[in-house]
Amino acid sequence: MAARSIGIGLMGLGVIGSGVVKVLMGKPETLAREAGSRLVLKKVLEQDSTKHGSMGLEPELFTTQFAELVNHPEVDIVVELIGGEHPAFEYIKEALAHGKHVVTANKEVMAKHWSQLLAVAHQHQVSLRCEASVGGGIPLIAPFQEDLVANDISAIYGILNGTTNYILTQMAKEGLDFSVALKQAQELGYAEANPANDIEGIDAAYKLAILTTIAFGTEVGPENIYHEGISRLQARDFRYAQELGYAIKLLAIAKRAGDSIEARVHPVFIPEDSLLAKVDGVYNAIHVEGDLVGKVIFYGQGAGPSATSSAIVADIINIAQNINRGTSSAPKLPFASERTIKPMAEIETRYYVRMSVADRPGVLAQISKILGDHSISISSVIQKEADPSTQIAEIMIMTHPANEQEVQQALKEAEQLPVVKEISNFVRVEA
Amino acid sequence: MAARSIGIGLMGLGVIGSGVVKVLMGKPETLAREAGSRLVLKKVLEQDSTKHGSMGLEPELFTTQFAELVNHPEVDIVVELIGGEHPAFEYIKEALAHGKHVVTANKEVMAKHWSQLLAVAHQHQVSLRCEASVGGGIPLIAPFQEDLVANDISAIYGILNGTTNYILTQMAKEGLDFSVALKQAQELGYAEANPANDIEGIDAAYKLAILTTIAFGTEVGPENIYHEGISRLQARDFRYAQELGYAIKLLAIAKRAGDSIEARVHPVFIPEDSLLAKVDGVYNAIHVEGDLVGKVIFYGQGAGPSATSSAIVADIINIAQNINRGTSSAPKLPFASERTIKPMAEIETRYYVRMSVADRPGVLAQISKILGDHSISISSVIQKEADPSTQIAEIMIMTHPANEQEVQQALKEAEQLPVVKEISNFVRVEA
Repeated sequence: MAARSIGIGLMGLGVIGSGVVKVLMGKPETLAREAGSRLVLKKVLEQDSTKHGSMGLEPELFTTQFAELVNHPEVDIVVELIGGEHPAFEYIKEALAHGKHVVTANKEVMAKHWSQLLAVAHQHQVSLRCEASVGGGIPLIAPFQEDLVANDISAIYGILNGTTNYILTQMAKEGLDFSVALKQAQELGYAEANPANDIEGIDAAYKLAILTTIAFGTEVGPENIYHEGISRLQARDFRYAQELGYAIKLLAIAKRAGDSIEARVHPVFIPEDSLLAKVDGVYNAIHVEGDLVGKVIFYGQGAGPSATSSAIVADIINIAQNINRGTSSAPKLPFASERTIKPMAEIETRYYVRMSVADRPGVLAQISKILGDHSISISSVIQKEADPSTQIAEIMIMTHPANEQEVQQALKEAEQLPVVKEISNFVRVEA
Repeated sequence: MAARSIGIGLMGLGVIGSGVVKVLMGKPETLAREAGSRLVLKKVLEQDSTKHGSMGLEPELFTTQFAELVNHPEVDIVVELIGGEHPAFEYIKEALAHGKHVVTANKEVMAKHWSQLLAVAHQHQVSLRCEASVGGGIPLIAPFQEDLVANDISAIYGILNGTTNYILTQMAKEGLDFSVALKQAQELGYAEANPANDIEGIDAAYKLAILTTIAFGTEVGPENIYHEGISRLQARDFRYAQELGYAIKLLAIAKRAGDSIEARVHPVFIPEDSLLAKVDGVYNAIHVEGDLVGKVIFYGQGAGPSATSSAIVADIINIAQNINRGTSSAPKLPFASERTIKPMAEIETRYYVRMSVADRPGVLAQISKILGDHSISISSVIQKEADPSTQIAEIMIMTHPANEQEVQQALKEAEQLPVVKEISNFVRVEA
């Protein structure tokens, strides 16, 4: 056992921060055995003074001044759990520049500033770890960097946001409308009062940026990732999906072909017998494809203080082990290979389209012609009997693989047809 | 990049060995970038001289003498892919004693001799890695040792043998009898001519020994693991399982409660809506429960040269990185905590029992009385109409949690009842 303990400076005593403190205080012997030293909380940065009495922590541990934490000589590892971009980014950067190792769960900062932070960590020969930023406690980043390192990764398909997966599960199982399912998720604490980051796919895009950067060795920022939320989905889309043998999930998708990468987050029809289709409620799952390993899936809780602490404390222990071995765990300067991001207009996939049309002969012929003109071929069609009062019928079309831009253009043209009342929804399909 | 290359000595050029050679020769730049040095094959131990011309390897690389490989000054890492207990165990031990790092995919040797080999590795300050010995390319051992290190693991449920999972999938989906499904698996190359190791659960028990040892930090050998194969299962068991809402899988189960560990491999009824129930064909999956992380599942190909090479080459790269950093990756001396293995007689679980009985009034009452006398309470019963010609009816009983020894005793007594023709099968049930 090493002579001295390893000092932790914790920034942010919210739900996750409190979870980490509980683990550090709750099983010190287990952690010391694994780390090779005792892990001791030396400073807690927290603006809310009502928290100072909490968790049985000594009041002297608390500070409201970042400088006091980052300059503390016994703080070896800074754990950033403030969340949000600012001031977390600046704090992490400054901590690295002060020669502190950093562990963070901050997906927004890592997605937007990874390459810059890695350069600072490299320059000061300290570690920067962020396992908890994607998939909560599910081991993901280390497996990519270590276990799957001999593979060329060709694709990632992830259910990376528990809030939206809960809402979609309720819509599918209970036939709820989006707004009802969202309200339910909010009442249960699974969705925030302002749910935009989750339901618009922004949170999943941050996480996909991190996974893609690691898996493909090229920095992919959130600005490179198309994202589309789940609010347009209606209960009837789930009924039709089931009829056609599909589930609807919000997927984060990244694919690589040669030097070209595509990365996008949007609702997707996936075959109902695929394992990802069975991932219900707030769980996350990530399907990875590598040239050697084939298909691998990781599944678990993507959020929550306990699962997230599992990843954060594992990162802390990893750094402590390296400190005790006298090894640098500073990152290699990364992202060597230059790749291009494929614009959304160029992607190719299958599509489900739902539209309202006049119940008249020849309607399907007119629509098929437009699709055909754009090289879009139809794989199946369901037409429901028209509502007798309105004489409006609903048609669902599933296409064979087609080009995104052509599909968008064709739908615009179809919408101009006098017989088409509305393009109600369209959802991409992955096999 | 380090000045010198890292030398590999490969033992065994069978299916897996050839897969590893293919990766080493196929993507040298990728591997060198990750490892920090070129990985160069220096010696191949193979008795079958017909293989010497294969794979474009120089004939001088080959030897039939272990001594020539282990004494080669440029061999840094010995990769053991001979399989079986002897002489693989002796070769690994001697390689470690010669100061060589060792990577092995040998589940039998690791399950039986881990603690002894670890002591030799520790003494000579070299690495011993075996990621490929369980779950093929699925990251498992590193996640337990690194990502989940802050957790107390309470349970593991694994589908660890692809051969039996393929057979069970065919029995469930096609209604095949065991012998037909086995024959099919043999024709497809999924089962060996002598399939005993797979179908009797011995292979899965070796793998469970390795996982349990790592997860619980206590050496658990194959002799501590109860194993029971799948050959007693009949097509009708699958029909009844489906009727009751269950799938049948060969599960490797390890649980820990306080200082007591139970570890066993046998067919199990699991709820058909659980994710493990959806794992079909030759795939493997491992469900882990930890106090922090909750439930985590890892899924992928458990065998095959390509997936297995993914894990073997990752182990080689990990060792190469440590050599280049000048860090010892020698194991800590392990297995500190002493725990006791719970005898099979003491386990508690639910049971499915299928029996043939005379079609007479009061039969169920007699059986229930015996079960009740052994504190076994019935959760559900299905009785099918009797065959009119034989007057024999079939009864299926599902119990609430009960003690294994009591159940075994009760079934012996029930079999003595004049009205009971046969206890046809019994299968444990996990929720």
